[in-house]
Formats: sequence, structure tokens, C-alpha cells
Amino acid sequence: MGKKPLIVLNFKTYTEGMGENAVKMAKYCEEVSADSGVKIIAVPQAPDIYRVACSVKIPVFAQHIDGVVAGSHTGHITADCVRSAGATGTLINHSERRLLLADIDSAIQSARRSELITIVCTNNVAVTLAVATFAPEFVAIEPPELIGSGIPVSKADPDIVRGSVSAVKRIQPDVEVLCGAGISRGDDVAAALELGAAGVLLASGIIRAKDPKAALIDLVGNI
Amino acid sequence: MGKKPLIVLNFKTYTEGMGENAVKMAKYCEEVSADSGVKIIAVPQAPDIYRVACSVKIPVFAQHIDGVVAGSHTGHITADCVRSAGATGTLINHSERRLLLADIDSAIQSARRSELITIVCTNNVAVTLAVATFAPEFVAIEPPELIGSGIPVSKADPDIVRGSVSAVKRIQPDVEVLCGAGISRGDDVAAALELGAAGVLLASGIIRAKDPKAALIDLVGNI
Amino acid sequence: MGKKPLIVLNFKTYTEGMGENAVKMAKYCEEVSADSGVKIIAVPQAPDIYRVACSVKIPVFAQHIDGVVAGSHTGHITADCVRSAGATGTLINHSERRLLLADIDSAIQSARRSELITIVCTNNVAVTLAVATFAPEFVAIEPPELIGSGIPVSKADPDIVRGSVSAVKRIQPDVEVLCGAGISRGDDVAAALELGAAGVLLASGIIRAKDPKAALIDLVGNI
Amino acid sequence: MGKKPLIVLNFKTYTEGMGENAVKMAKYCEEVSADSGVKIIAVPQAPDIYRVACSVKIPVFAQHIDGVVAGSHTGHITADCVRSAGATGTLINHSERRLLLADIDSAIQSARRSELITIVCTNNVAVTLAVATFAPEFVAIEPPELIGSGIPVSKADPDIVRGSVSAVKRIQPDVEVLCGAGISRGDDVAAALELGAAGVLLASGIIRAKDPKAALIDLVGNI
Repeated sequence: MGKKPLIVLNFKTYTEGMGENAVKMAKYCEEVSADSGVKIIAVPQAPDIYRVACSVKIPVFAQHIDGVVAGSHTGHITADCVRSAGATGTLINHSERRLLLADIDSAIQSARRSELITIVCTNNVAVTLAVATFAPEFVAIEPPELIGSGIPVSKADPDIVRGSVSAVKRIQPDVEVLCGAGISRGDDVAAALELGAAGVLLASGIIRAKDPKAALIDLVGNI
Repeated sequence: MGKKPLIVLNFKTYTEGMGENAVKMAKYCEEVSADSGVKIIAVPQAPDIYRVACSVKIPVFAQHIDGVVAGSHTGHITADCVRSAGATGTLINHSERRLLLADIDSAIQSARRSELITIVCTNNVAVTLAVATFAPEFVAIEPPELIGSGIPVSKADPDIVRGSVSAVKRIQPDVEVLCGAGISRGDDVAAALELGAAGVLLASGIIRAKDPKAALIDLVGNI
Repeated sequence: MGKKPLIVLNFKTYTEGMGENAVKMAKYCEEVSADSGVKIIAVPQAPDIYRVACSVKIPVFAQHIDGVVAGSHTGHITADCVRSAGATGTLINHSERRLLLADIDSAIQSARRSELITIVCTNNVAVTLAVATFAPEFVAIEPPELIGSGIPVSKADPDIVRGSVSAVKRIQPDVEVLCGAGISRGDDVAAALELGAAGVLLASGIIRAKDPKAALIDLVGNI
Repeated sequence: MGKKPLIVLNFKTYTEGMGENAVKMAKYCEEVSADSGVKIIAVPQAPDIYRVACSVKIPVFAQHIDGVVAGSHTGHITADCVRSAGATGTLINHSERRLLLADIDSAIQSARRSELITIVCTNNVAVTLAVATFAPEFVAIEPPELIGSGIPVSKADPDIVRGSVSAVKRIQPDVEVLCGAGISRGDDVAAALELGAAGVLLASGIIRAKDPKAALIDLVGNI
């Protein structure tokens, strides 16, 4: 386990990770990252990207971008706009915000033009394989039934992680796999890395923890 | 025409109204508003709300909110979050971002709880009437075929504006009607007010003008 | 309770109500309707409408129509097409198939042109009121949390039924209210009628019953 | 050009291909297929599948299926249901009915279980490659801007057809490519075959022709 894993923390729309709380949560991430040497990415809601990015030095990602670019579009989130607000990457196709196939393609293309790193979420090995053909930087495999369950995918369904890693390597060896759904503790992360994942995508386990900073310390403690 | 009209300027995803340009555009709005006494509302993309709201004293609105609230939602825009970023109102159901009926209802309810003013967009008189039952502060009637056309609805289809005003008054006398689609000049605004509208919702005519500030001055000049 | 209620039976995509089973289920409806004098409407999947309508004399409704008309649309269900296949009405905006507000309006308009009776589903009193402005023949109120629960809305939440009836009467006295969600027995129907509903919309309670015909007989037995 | 091409005729929601007209159009296909030895597939709206399939011996395909299976779903089109109505295949993800990526995967899986042949529509080479990983029987490449244009993709953008053929062969050699958008005459088909396509997907060029049977005869005449 020579390589340090990547921790991607999705703030979702939780009150505990919104507005001023988003800044506070991102600072916890920054402190734990600095102390541990583990890379942690903060993923706040779109209206919070700017003030979070102004407040911390760790990477800030968007939760979603649309496949559209500059033009006559209202209420959409463009790659260009989150980039100029300070994001350096974005989730795409999260299970709570699934996209049309054609829009995943155009969102990844837009992200690339705006120099955003992309983490595309998938729900099974077949979809992971399809997404890998688009060559995003990361695919995050999250079986929908485990999201928010507290049951880590790395333990409940190791084959879906192994299968995703090997599918991706076959198509696009440079794409890395993250492991989502049900992750909240350090040994969940260790199990994910054992299966070939490059890191984890997680949310409620940290954001809604009584002491989110302590939960983050526990998370990276065993790495 | 004793009462001053309301001007709502939708920045859409135009480059000319994004990032630093969004701040600049909002400042033009602020200056023209201060000089003319006409109320102008700036409507930037979600990631720009915070920095625009920090830079100007005029109201800043969101282009869209989702019907969801705090919780396990990713990539959604909540009323609470745009409020805490500095918005004091929001568009809902813009023709480029239409919502399910049930989500219009829940978005309006969320907005109300977060003390956001709501402008719900509609495409014809029947839909205006349906939306009026939810008692938003404003309904903005925009026949889709005229959006971005340069042909003002107040001239091309005055009956749809009159019909919307009278439909709304029948159901919810307090709801005001805005007139969208194809508005770009001062006399388009005057025509809208003649038809009973309380103001206008516009975008490309100003945002993409060679000199947006001059276009704004022209817009409010005849009022 | 002088007036006979209307029973609308949604076959959903249950195997027990698909293909040859759809024809068999519709025949049970026809027999029970003939014996009891209660009007029963069969609502099979779109590909089954034609053969069900050819096999029974009771009304056959579609589960859904899109807001589009004849033209360059693929995979959509038009009012015209379900009419020519033998349907005489349609559900619109079922909670499992919600529509954009503008599409509810255009679907109702299309249905009217094709002489289809419309039952528009709603999730709460506010949405019922909005839908009533479109003057469909029926609004079916179905709180989403009770669908398939076996807990009848007429007992669990009588106020939502009463509220819907009174909202509708205020706006469009000719619109009738149906009561959906959790209905499976005769006394659920009786309770719905007591609250002012004109009938019920139901599905699994009958379709998945061990003996659907017996369940239908029980349903209409107390009326 | 030893191998006979495949002609897939999408009836869309055109009046000329609906209800009784759908049966008539399918019979033209059957006659021209019998006379020419060219395989022609009729693709009517869902409510017309049963009566078309009962009237002709050529294959009948659905225009769309949803990713859902038997259960509590209303207004959805299941693989099972179109199969039992007589369809032997289906389009999936047509540009007028695009699907979420996860739903394309589940729709293909459902189709496979119901023994339906799948034609998945795509809009560019990257999306064709992604879809090929799911191993449908066919991918139909249709650049959206050419649909209904009368400008055949096989002439306007030969590289997108060649690129799709070579992308597919690299991933799944058994997947065949169809060429859609703007096809209406025999030499458009010949051009498509030259580029490596196995056939064509077309609609208005035949359905809306003054004499659809003559148009079909012309279409297959040069093959």
C-alpha cells in the first residue's frame, strides 16, 4: 500500500455541509489532509464552490455539471463556470443525478476543455466499462442499494469493485477506480485499496458524523 | 404608468455574464438602477451567485432551484443554499429548465421557507393559470418560440400577456405577471406595461449587446 | 350513496396484467361490472390496449400519453394512437410517470382533441388545485407514500381527499375526484365515497390478489 | 456487396404510419421485402405493435423500451410486453427518446432476457464506442443535426460512419452498425454499405413520401 489513496468527500445537500458549514467542513478536510499527507477533495453544492475554494488550499470539485456550454441555457451548471469559481474537477452522473448517455459524453468533453478532472459515477461493472471508453480520470463505482447504507461496498460486494478495476484496465489502463457507497471508516478504505481502488468517494459517514473531523482522522488513520 | 417596472436580467450561461463578467454585468445593472430608480435584478449562474451578491447591492436571484431540500441529494440546487449564498429570489421552471409539476410545487414551498421570492416561468395562458394557484410572487410568461428571437412578446402576441394578467387576477390577485421572450428595448418594456405586466424578464438582448450598459440605459430610458 | 362509483384498475407492468393475462384480467372486470352495475375501467400497458379493447366491452384507458402529437417523435405514446387502438381515456401524470407541467397541459389538450377522457394524477391538495384549472374529467389524488402500501388513503389521510374535493369544486365544479393509493377492499371504496370522491384508482390490491375476480367482487360488494 | 442490407423503417408518430395506416405501411414493407429479398423491419408506435404483428410476416420492432421490468411501474414499456405483443426487437435510446446511461444498460439486459434484438441509437463515434461495450446486436449512428434533413449521413459525414464501424469492431466485432439520419434513396443506402454499415434506419423519407411503396422499391432497387 505504498501509494496514498484519494478521499473524495461529497457534501451533498446536507445542512452540515452547506454555506458557512461548507467552509468549515472543507477546513477540516484541509487540516486532516495536511496532517496525514492523504489527498482529500471537498465537493460542496454549486453555490458554495466559490467561497469554499477561496477559503482552502485543497482541491474543490463540483457535484455535477451539465453537458451544455456557454449559450442560451438557464439553470444549468457549466464546466467553465465551476472552473472560474475555483473548482478543479467534478463528479458526473452521480446516482442521485444520473445523465443521459449523450450528456455524459458532452459533459466529459466540456470538463476536458475547461481542464476539470472528472469522476464519473457508475452503478455496475457493465456501466463502468462503458464509461471507461470516454477516458475520464476516475470512475466511481457505487451500487445504488448501498448508498447511505453504512454497509461498505468494499466488504458487501468486493466483486463489483474488482470487476470494475479489471474492466477499466482492459479498456483504458489510465482510468482509476474509486469505491463509493457505504464507506465511513478507515478499514473500509483499506479494503477498497486491497481490491485495486485508488481511493473512495463518501458522504454521510463523515458529513453527518457527530464529529466530522474526528471521523476524517479515523478514516485516514489506518492508511 | 406611475409605477416603476421590474427588470429581471437572466445571465443564462453566456460567457459575457459568467465569472468575473457576471460581477461586471451586475455592476452595470446596479449603476443603471441607481441612476434611473428602476429596480433591476441580476440572475447569474449558481456558482456565481455568491461573488455577485458580495459585489452589488441590487437583488441577486438564482436561475433555478430543485424541489429537494437538505439531505441525500447530489448536484441539486436547494433554496436554502442559494439563500445562504446571497440570493433573495429565484426563477423556477424556465423554458430551458422545465420542471415536473410536483417539483414546481415543492420548489415554491422550499423557496417560501427560505424566504426567496419566486418567479415561475410559463409558456401559455393555461399554464399561467395553473401556476397562479401556487401563489408565487411572479409569473413570467414566455412563449418558447419567441425566446431569443428579438421579436418582443409584448408586440408579437399581446393577447397572451393580457390573457395571463387576467387569468392570474382571477385566481390570485396578488400574483404579478412579467413579460419575457424577445424583449430588448425600452419600447418593448413600455408595451409590456401597457398590457398589464409588472415588468420584464430578458437575457440575450442585454447580455450579448455590444455595450450592455448602454442597452440597459436604453431599456429603462423610456420608462 | 345513490350514485355508483367508478373503479379504475391500473394493470401497471405486472405480469399478472400483461399480454394474455391483460385480456383475462379485463374480462374479470367486465364480468364483475356486468353483475354489479358498477363501472370498471381497465388500464393495461400500451402494447396491450388493442387486444384488450378488442376483447371486452368495458372502457379501456391508457396508462400514459405524452404531450406530443403526430410528427417526428420516436417512442412516444400519442393520444391519437391510443384512441385508434381502442382506448377511450387515459391516465396522465401518474406518480410513477410524472410529467413536466407544460406537457400535462399539452397532453390534456391532445386527449381532448382525440376525445379521450383524462384522469390526471396528483400528489397533494396544492397540485390537485393546479391541475383542476386544466379541466380534466378527473383528478386522482394519490399520496406517493401510500401507493402499494395496503394502507388506504381514504382512511390514512382523509383530509387530503376532502381537501382535494373542495379545492376542485372551487375552481372547476365539473371535475371529479378519484381516490388512489392503498385501496384494495370494499370498505376503502365506501370511505372514499363518503369523503366526496367519485370513485377509486387502484392496482396491486386487485392485480396481484390470489383471486383477482374475487377481490373485485369484494371491492364492489359493499357499494 | 454480396450481403443484402437491413432496412429498418421507423414509423415515428406520423399519422401516415399510425393505426390502420401502420398496418398498411407494414404491408408495403412486406411486399417490397418479398419481391426484393431485402429484409425490412417495421417499427410502429407501441399501441400498434400487436395489430401490425398480427397482419404481416416481416419482423416488427418497438420504438423504445424502458429499463424497468414487471412491477409497480405505470406508463412504461417493458421488453416483456412488446415481446408478447409480437415484437421481435426494439430501438433503444433514439435521439428523440434518449435514456440515462444506467437505463440503456438495463433496457438491453431486459431485451436480452425477452429475446428481443436491440438497435441502440448513438450520436457520435465516442457514444457508439461506449454502447458497443454493452454488446447489442446493432448500433445505429444518427448525427442529430441530420435527422429529417434529407441530407444522408452516408454522404454528409462519411467519417462518422467509418469511425463508428471501426470503433465497434475494435470492442465487439459481432455488433453491426446501421446508418441513420437523412437516408431516403437507394444510393444513400449503397453509400452506407460502402462505408461498412450493415443497413439503414430511416423514417420520414419513406413514411411521408407521396407513394411510400414506390419509395421503398426505389430504396431497395439499387441494392
